[in-house]
Amino acid sequence: MRILLVGAGGVGDAIAKIAARRTFYDTITVSDYDVARAERTVGWIRARHGEEVASRFRTAAIDASDPDSVEAVAREHRATHVMNAVEPKFVPTIFAGAFAAGADYLDMAMSLSEPHPTDPYEKTGVKLGDDQFALRGDWEAAGRLALVGMGVEPGLSDVFARYAADELFSSIGELGTRDGANLVVRDEAGNEIFAPSFSIWTTIEECLNPPVVFEKDTGWFTTPPFSEPEVFDFPEGIGPVECVNVEHEEVLLMPRWLDAKRVTFKYGLGEEFIGVLKTLHLLGLDSTTPVRVRSAGGPAEVAPRDVVAAALPDPATIGPLMTGKTCAGVNVTGIGVDGAPREVYLYHVSDNEWTMREYDCQCVVWQTALNPVIALELLAKGAWRGTGVLGPEAFPARPFLELMERPEHDGGYGQAWGMREAR
Amino acid sequence: MRILLVGAGGVGDAIAKIAARRTFYDTITVSDYDVARAERTVGWIRARHGEEVASRFRTAAIDASDPDSVEAVAREHRATHVMNAVEPKFVPTIFAGAFAAGADYLDMAMSLSEPHPTDPYEKTGVKLGDDQFALRGDWEAAGRLALVGMGVEPGLSDVFARYAADELFSSIGELGTRDGANLVVRDEAGNEIFAPSFSIWTTIEECLNPPVVFEKDTGWFTTPPFSEPEVFDFPEGIGPVECVNVEHEEVLLMPRWLDAKRVTFKYGLGEEFIGVLKTLHLLGLDSTTPVRVRSAGGPAEVAPRDVVAAALPDPATIGPLMTGKTCAGVNVTGIGVDGAPREVYLYHVSDNEWTMREYDCQCVVWQTALNPVIALELLAKGAWRGTGVLGPEAFPARPFLELMERPEHDGGYGQAWGMREAR
Repeated sequence: MRILLVGAGGVGDAIAKIAARRTFYDTITVSDYDVARAERTVGWIRARHGEEVASRFRTAAIDASDPDSVEAVAREHRATHVMNAVEPKFVPTIFAGAFAAGADYLDMAMSLSEPHPTDPYEKTGVKLGDDQFALRGDWEAAGRLALVGMGVEPGLSDVFARYAADELFSSIGELGTRDGANLVVRDEAGNEIFAPSFSIWTTIEECLNPPVVFEKDTGWFTTPPFSEPEVFDFPEGIGPVECVNVEHEEVLLMPRWLDAKRVTFKYGLGEEFIGVLKTLHLLGLDSTTPVRVRSAGGPAEVAPRDVVAAALPDPATIGPLMTGKTCAGVNVTGIGVDGAPREVYLYHVSDNEWTMREYDCQCVVWQTALNPVIALELLAKGAWRGTGVLGPEAFPARPFLELMERPEHDGGYGQAWGMREAR
Repeated sequence: MRILLVGAGGVGDAIAKIAARRTFYDTITVSDYDVARAERTVGWIRARHGEEVASRFRTAAIDASDPDSVEAVAREHRATHVMNAVEPKFVPTIFAGAFAAGADYLDMAMSLSEPHPTDPYEKTGVKLGDDQFALRGDWEAAGRLALVGMGVEPGLSDVFARYAADELFSSIGELGTRDGANLVVRDEAGNEIFAPSFSIWTTIEECLNPPVVFEKDTGWFTTPPFSEPEVFDFPEGIGPVECVNVEHEEVLLMPRWLDAKRVTFKYGLGEEFIGVLKTLHLLGLDSTTPVRVRSAGGPAEVAPRDVVAAALPDPATIGPLMTGKTCAGVNVTGIGVDGAPREVYLYHVSDNEWTMREYDCQCVVWQTALNPVIALELLAKGAWRGTGVLGPEAFPARPFLELMERPEHDGGYGQAWGMREAR
């Protein structure tokens, strides 16, 4: 396996660092628009793991917005797998470039949605991933695999859902992905500061788009943003967090392979963050349409959302200032295999103190990066096989969860996951 | 009197249009960094009032950030008075340029403050207007007048305060400027939109700076932003609005000439707007320090606050979409001239429907512009005289209020003002 990693931002950097402890691949080419970022990642690996490990890594410059650039870099490095680790707006070009280069493809977020032209808060328009599933036939015909939505959410959440369907439930009521954290960021003086732990660009995109819900009787439909608020009690000391519906890939992926009456995604944004997002929207600062503004070099055309991202601390840099844990998981209700009503929350918790110590990565970014590396290893070893455009729930869950929780000294990733039984 | 008007933005445009109905001056030169804006204003005057009126107006390009440019334009047009109608950050350069040109000077906002270096929310640092009052000796020695803070607030509010001190009270407890409105802006589809009626740049500056309060025993001191919330009931159907302390010139001006135990300024921002300002501050979007951001023309350095202003509708353009009234005034408590406790609110209300019909100006901007025109007329006629750096309360209030309320057909401005007696 020869991997082309596209993007050396927070998650791309963490993917490379996690993979550096594994041996299932031949080479990883870390590529970025700014090749200095890729070199920084490989420099960290060299310093931490030595020259032998670092020798399996290469760096390259790439333009993720150009399929030809992606194809050229993939061909030059003879990539068998293209691992997309940049913002979801680049999904179509990387997806096309990987296909053109004859490589398999993985991503952690799917092609973007477009709201319904007249009923955006009731009906779906172009859904997340539609542009990728539209090309499913091409990938199947070529006998190649695009594994989409293979981060933590979507990704691990979908693996948990498949596990619940296979081994815990005879029929499922709701597959409800629930994400929450108790992360706090403080400046050097110890004052709490506002610093989202994940790309604000992506967070705005997913939180302000109409949330999508799936119901077996109706199919997919949308609601206004921040609908159906619910306080969910997260495990391992995180505690209750206000969660609301958010547009997310799980809702589009799970119903394609799993049988459930209802599929939802709720994000534990908390009241303050919901207020911030509403205000950004009110002021048009979520917009990606450039506005004209004065700058030192004369009038410039800049997108307000890019300025919001630029004004906030880079999520990849706040790790040392952050404390707390983040939890990703799926709450499943239905009838258990014994015929009795059952509700379980399957989850994984990532602790910032640990991820910083082990990887110099903050925990949200690190937790996202863990799962595609496990998936790549399962693909390299043949434990996962498939062709076409597939979600994580199209593959058996047990090998994934076993490799994930097996201790590192025993060849696994040493990452425990939890199952909380309701009542 | 030959007036150089610096700035043909919302307020400058309205000053010229209001002055076009008057005859107390010889010429007005409307100047702007973008001379097309000045020409648009004079074009409106020509279309509305004809060539004879328009012939008293000229246009010029000016760089308000450069004292030499201000001096050169003032000299070229032989200005006797320089009327500053641009953002307060340009006060020092216009103030210096007017002095160098040998002209008198008026503004509607004073030189900016700088917070106390260690105790910003308790002690004053550089106060509003300090940089101007520091030069008082020069203006006095030259026998020339700088009339500072001569808009509506500061401006008319200070005139009201002087009136209360002269004619209504034997001793004053509090001079409390209170500003509130019931303005609503709707888009073409009739949906309410967020569109501040005054420069957001200036609003951020005054609302996020530490508010200043004056108490006779302590002098000037500061508090955290948005302190001492109070619901004030505004007259003429506006009703109760949540008001909070805001840094404003009245608090610095009134105690220099009037005797009061306490001087405050509270702005009826309303809960939504306070929330917006807090969020902008939380995210660093109030900052004037440039951040690096991508743009069509390559990386650009832009100030987040400029982007917030650019993303919002231009306050000068929202008039046709706006309905409602704005109220400016001073609430005065103390002992009346008859020796009994007294509380009165002296105020002026501006109705957007009327200002749009008469002037094509939205009401907040128009109300600001009215007062310097009245002041210029009083100076031209000799009813107001003075040298040095003086606030509006340094001049007798009665001639101002009489000229303001006298009907237009009788040579006045036809603007009624109100007095509400408590209980």
